[in-house]
Amino acid sequence: MERKKMTAAEVESRIASTGNWRFDNDVLFKRFEFANFAESLAFVNQVGEIAEAADHHPDITFGWGYAELRTTTHDRGGVTDVDFALVEKIDAID
Amino acid sequence: MERKKMTAAEVESRIASTGNWRFDNDVLFKRFEFANFAESLAFVNQVGEIAEAADHHPDITFGWGYAELRTTTHDRGGVTDVDFALVEKIDAID
Repeated sequence: MERKKMTAAEVESRIASTGNWRFDNDVLFKRFEFANFAESLAFVNQVGEIAEAADHHPDITFGWGYAELRTTTHDRGGVTDVDFALVEKIDAID
Repeated sequence: MERKKMTAAEVESRIASTGNWRFDNDVLFKRFEFANFAESLAFVNQVGEIAEAADHHPDITFGWGYAELRTTTHDRGGVTDVDFALVEKIDAID
């Protein structure tokens, strides 16, 4: 992958094909809702497996009935194709 | 358990015996640091197991090398003995 910081226009163009991710403050963000804590935790573990395989790790906030994911490429100071590759794999979970 | 909102003085008194938890804005908070993402995720799963057993669920933010926990008793609008019971079980993890 290129791993080059994308411009806002490039991000806005590519984000349209994701499952409702948002672009905010150099980060791709999405909130997911679940029926309870166990389902949130199960989802977080699926994301963790994907992140480890990609060696690219989002920041995850979760609790009873929800999970929020944020991904950016820290050493590039913004969003790169590596973030979009991660997002696409997460979108493909069930 | 009593499950009664504790006063700030009661919280400050009891928090002294925890492993460096902080009291802020009606929440008990602690940040943990780890060597990598896998260790953070393993810790989060241990916390998840404790939370499910207690039927009391913190909000958890984690990523590469860290996890932050926040616990409050939402239906009491603040910290109760249920939060301290959770904190004590989390402090007892390895």
